[in-house]
Amino acid sequence: MYSEGMSTQERLVEATRELLWERGYVGTSPKAILQRAGVGQGSMYHHFTGKQDLALAAIRRTGEELRAAVDRLLDTDTSAYARIEAYLLRERDVLRGCPVGRLTMDPDVIADPELRAPVDETIAYIEGRLAAIVQEGVDSGEFAPRLVPAEIAATVLATVQGGYVLARASGATEAFDGAVRGLLSLLAP
Amino acid sequence: MYSEGMSTQERLVEATRELLWERGYVGTSPKAILQRAGVGQGSMYHHFTGKQDLALAAIRRTGEELRAAVDRLLDTDTSAYARIEAYLLRERDVLRGCPVGRLTMDPDVIADPELRAPVDETIAYIEGRLAAIVQEGVDSGEFAPRLVPAEIAATVLATVQGGYVLARASGATEAFDGAVRGLLSLLAP
Repeated sequence: MYSEGMSTQERLVEATRELLWERGYVGTSPKAILQRAGVGQGSMYHHFTGKQDLALAAIRRTGEELRAAVDRLLDTDTSAYARIEAYLLRERDVLRGCPVGRLTMDPDVIADPELRAPVDETIAYIEGRLAAIVQEGVDSGEFAPRLVPAEIAATVLATVQGGYVLARASGATEAFDGAVRGLLSLLAP
Repeated sequence: MYSEGMSTQERLVEATRELLWERGYVGTSPKAILQRAGVGQGSMYHHFTGKQDLALAAIRRTGEELRAAVDRLLDTDTSAYARIEAYLLRERDVLRGCPVGRLTMDPDVIADPELRAPVDETIAYIEGRLAAIVQEGVDSGEFAPRLVPAEIAATVLATVQGGYVLARASGATEAFDGAVRGLLSLLAP
């Protein structure tokens, strides 16, 4: 499943990332991780103390990648609206949902401050970036002065996260697209 | 845990509803349902064929209750904006998330057309009600004619569902409130 050159540690982290995205933390057993990674139990406990430790490494890496992808998308010299639009229209695997956001529905992630921390940090980071862009747009007169940047940033992020819910409920990506288009029509200068 | 007069069947459905909300379908074992309901395994198989059958009854009832609550909230003689506002500001147990929406992150619910159906129907029903209200608002001139009612309805619902994600990630209800206030400021006539 993974390339030959991949270390055991890498295989374990990648397998855990995939399983967390597909089945969540509650739905992922150590056995399933070992099977997917193609490594033995001894190797796992050599590198990690257990499922929680492995999940922590996996969630941290997924969060880092998501933050980097958002940075690449938002670091452009375009208008505030164009950057918010780029974020909303970003290519996504809509029916798989968000690999970070979906973890908030996982009771054992939310109950564990260590596992929740990288989820919280990633979402807060993206919200902060979006809020700064909305602020720029308010300052430049692109957006109405009554808009509160932190609130609009939360609305943008919530529309994306909730868009996944609508799409997965209906089994079709259209519901996600509709929610995003609706928000863009409300934001249009 | 449940009142003495409650039938075994009722106890089982109520226990399943609670556990689905707290832990999801993947995270709920038949054993946990029996323990919470305080009934024996034989009673469960007398009334239901198994966990899937019981979950179906539970999700259907939760969906019915949610639709009825939304109907009570929206069946008022107020402006379109006031009804959307009432929906968005509805009292919610924000940190618990939506008992219906959270099931979309459950791989075994989404993979099972029978279990997904009541989730899809409930979300589509609320979206349809919100879209009709936005249409009224567009017709009366309360909302801009460029707004597409089905899209705005999806945005409203997505903001609520995504608001739960932000709140659970941060462990605080403020993120939900911010997303909702942001959307209301964009919708304000």
